[in-house]
Amino acid sequence: MPVSNEVTTTERPDVNAANCPSRSVLEHITSRWGVLVLAALLEDGRRFSELRRLIGGVSEKMLAQTLQTLERDGFVHREAHPVIPPRVDYSLTELGEQAARLVAGLARWSEAHVTDVLTARAGYDDRS
Amino acid sequence: MPVSNEVTTTERPDVNAANCPSRSVLEHITSRWGVLVLAALLEDGRRFSELRRLIGGVSEKMLAQTLQTLERDGFVHREAHPVIPPRVDYSLTELGEQAARLVAGLARWSEAHVTDVLTARAGYDDRS
Repeated sequence: MPVSNEVTTTERPDVNAANCPSRSVLEHITSRWGVLVLAALLEDGRRFSELRRLIGGVSEKMLAQTLQTLERDGFVHREAHPVIPPRVDYSLTELGEQAARLVAGLARWSEAHVTDVLTARAGYDDRS
Repeated sequence: MPVSNEVTTTERPDVNAANCPSRSVLEHITSRWGVLVLAALLEDGRRFSELRRLIGGVSEKMLAQTLQTLERDGFVHREAHPVIPPRVDYSLTELGEQAARLVAGLARWSEAHVTDVLTARAGYDDRS
């Protein structure tokens, strides 16, 4: 079994350790598009095309790659329907829902505090 | 005043909108090193050199850049002490502490669920 798939570890997981697999977990759920995909799936299962429309600026390639990473990590369930035209639905697993609630909290916080941050930036730039 | 420093907005902030400034707030607090720096500062103010030692794999340049971004956003307070050798301390502002609590929650969750994710990855790779 390759090292990257070892499911047991003797040391306590620590995201500050560059080689600890928990850092890759954190990086996947906080990735540029991972955050937005998880938050978008929190309310409902969604089709690929819906996610693509909802999340402004994401390319088809990046969205597919992000969903695949999240599926491999056990956060996202992918269901391909054998219809014409083909339809693929994505939903959160139980594990993914836990992660999604945390990242959605960050997304909502960012929206709620954007004015504070923009004010801070203007002050910083005035002083520089 | 440049558009990026506008502190008022007529529309409701939405991280799914590519041009909404709330997306940049979210991206800064969830950046690769931003997450780890915020979480590291949550317990205590720290010197640059301490942060560099604590956060495995961060380069001096990336740490400096991350701290500057977080300072400009109003999350981090920087205090340079006029001593020899020079010493610079970083601490969280009140706003930064709010963000840090949320990202530290994600870091702790990632550590707690690393085995679940590694198990999911092994299963995915076996099926592929």
